[in-house]
Amino acid sequence: MRIESVEFFYLSMPVVTTEADGSQDALLVRVRGGGFTGHGECEAAPLPSIAAFVCPMSHGVCRPVGASVLGRTLDGPADIARMAADVAYDSMDLLQAAHTWSGVEMALWDLLGQARGEPVWRLLGYSASNRRTPYASVLFGDTPQHTLERARAARGRGFRAAKFGWGPIGRGAAALDADHFVAAREGLGADGVLLVDVGQIFGEDVGRAAERLPALEAAGATWLEEPFAASAYEAYAALAARGSSVRTAGGEGAHDVAMARHLMDFGRVGFVQIDCGRIGGIGPARQVADLAAARGVTYVNHTFTTHLALSASLQPYAGHAPDAICEYPAEPKPLAVELTANRLERAADGSVAAPDAPGLGIEIDADAVRRYLLDVEIRVKGEVLYRTPAV
Amino acid sequence: MRIESVEFFYLSMPVVTTEADGSQDALLVRVRGGGFTGHGECEAAPLPSIAAFVCPMSHGVCRPVGASVLGRTLDGPADIARMAADVAYDSMDLLQAAHTWSGVEMALWDLLGQARGEPVWRLLGYSASNRRTPYASVLFGDTPQHTLERARAARGRGFRAAKFGWGPIGRGAAALDADHFVAAREGLGADGVLLVDVGQIFGEDVGRAAERLPALEAAGATWLEEPFAASAYEAYAALAARGSSVRTAGGEGAHDVAMARHLMDFGRVGFVQIDCGRIGGIGPARQVADLAAARGVTYVNHTFTTHLALSASLQPYAGHAPDAICEYPAEPKPLAVELTANRLERAADGSVAAPDAPGLGIEIDADAVRRYLLDVEIRVKGEVLYRTPAV
Repeated sequence: MRIESVEFFYLSMPVVTTEADGSQDALLVRVRGGGFTGHGECEAAPLPSIAAFVCPMSHGVCRPVGASVLGRTLDGPADIARMAADVAYDSMDLLQAAHTWSGVEMALWDLLGQARGEPVWRLLGYSASNRRTPYASVLFGDTPQHTLERARAARGRGFRAAKFGWGPIGRGAAALDADHFVAAREGLGADGVLLVDVGQIFGEDVGRAAERLPALEAAGATWLEEPFAASAYEAYAALAARGSSVRTAGGEGAHDVAMARHLMDFGRVGFVQIDCGRIGGIGPARQVADLAAARGVTYVNHTFTTHLALSASLQPYAGHAPDAICEYPAEPKPLAVELTANRLERAADGSVAAPDAPGLGIEIDADAVRRYLLDVEIRVKGEVLYRTPAV
Repeated sequence: MRIESVEFFYLSMPVVTTEADGSQDALLVRVRGGGFTGHGECEAAPLPSIAAFVCPMSHGVCRPVGASVLGRTLDGPADIARMAADVAYDSMDLLQAAHTWSGVEMALWDLLGQARGEPVWRLLGYSASNRRTPYASVLFGDTPQHTLERARAARGRGFRAAKFGWGPIGRGAAALDADHFVAAREGLGADGVLLVDVGQIFGEDVGRAAERLPALEAAGATWLEEPFAASAYEAYAALAARGSSVRTAGGEGAHDVAMARHLMDFGRVGFVQIDCGRIGGIGPARQVADLAAARGVTYVNHTFTTHLALSASLQPYAGHAPDAICEYPAEPKPLAVELTANRLERAADGSVAAPDAPGLGIEIDADAVRRYLLDVEIRVKGEVLYRTPAV
């Protein structure tokens, strides 16, 4: 089939706060071809991501993402890989291209799956979609008491595993952070899987990160996520060299396969976390899953938004590591909940898996799109390059 | 002083082609404060770069670049570093932020230099602006004969050093590329400095790059630039391990200090080339210059556009390595030539240097801005977030 249209829908909560909660807005992508429709989602920064699709060409290796997609043939996974290679080469001077392409790529897999009546994980060559133990992804509270309550609430909703992120951690004394770790463990229970995410707060400062290790070890944390800036491989490696039982996790900032590989090979992380909405979609994420398996690094999805993004993020490692965990947005904003007509609900045993339905197996709720849709228009030289499309 | 305004001007040639010539458009930045004006230039992709400055916040670590700049205090270099840190942390989920911030950062240095009556290189702590041997940066011809003519023309214009880039190299057989290298050397003369840039054409394929080494050695090339993708450190290191007299060069794709450091430490390049319009401006480029000096790697600017960008790109290493070369746009499009009222002309001995005038020492030609200015408007929810400002 031919890719007939690629449309972007910028959705937003009426009020967006400075909370580190990426579910406050969304950039939904709709791709059409051959009578079928596919959906994808770019992670964050909708306006520049739209601009990267429609912008005028600057020169031969700074072309808009749209130039590598619109009108192209889509008959199999190799066509998606070919478009990905063209975006990488022809848009190399356009940083936002990776974010923009990610949502489009997802939508192309969904479209291909719809056309073939196959789930994406099967198109990726997997014979099964393994079930995952979801971990609730929540933010640390402002106080240890607040963190304790959030941990109890997660456990109360049946989550055996939970990740606590951001909040006050790393902004004050290590002792205060330790109180939060204790509170999270207490709320989650002795048998819970406790994960901690500090959102790059230590920059490249290995000492400040290492100061938190004893308390993390005492709380029995499984990983310390993003202690450092996304590319601070040296700092990651230095922390790993401390030999703590708490391994580092990272990778959400990777916007190509090489960055994820470097985090494993140079940064020696124990867990590599890939966001399909940033790394260029499902194809590159699958490459990382293979690289991780070959290295004994545990692959985990990074997903903090909708169940469309969640389904996409489960596909790349659907056939890998039967007992692995997965990130599961536990307290997303209403926008993220309402955007999809169906959701990947947990089974009786608490597990989730990439669905067996064609494509990504997720249906969009058109009314929700209308409710949260922002009216956007971009004009250059009097010509409308982008206008919010009809739902 | 307070940063009162930051304005973007999207300039473009009437016709933009797929030629790998980044001087076909420009994104000029004008910053005002305390009665003074500073200018900077973002490298490539104007529309998403503008969007990254004005976009609505998505969440706490996906804020528009403008949020870290507008209304802030600028009294010294530390204030610029503080804004840079805020952009890095508060806009980490916004890939285009690095490109956008680069032009703003340059303009802030220019503004600070105007206010203090000092050239930027002095604000950076250098006591002298060393003179550089400029190399003409031109594209390979379509045929070896065409390349020969371009090399002769460069020599004819007094350039002892020249870099040939892109064109057909790496797209066909190694033997054809060898003919181009021979032609470039012949046209340049036996005593000329010959540099070759292949624009990431080999991706991560070390074998195909290595195939070209014998011909490059025979032609006496000084470096082979960007044989691989910007983050393919392993491929860079593997090529370096061949021990050729032709060292690799790279770094223009670095959009933070870590990427440049990794290219040196993991990729073992002999030359690190930094574009101030991409790496986040003059401050981070200066950090790379220091890191390079400490490693025995040669720092070189990457500049293919205007003399505003050229002046900015000479500042970070103005006090380093007295005998170094510099990239000098030799055949830019009229837009890039006309944009500045003054230019860094070569002295009688052929050399150039960062100017002694305050700031970046470059004056903008308002009429040229008007001639090439594109009318752009971005609206979200009926509100105009960006409209081309008055010149």
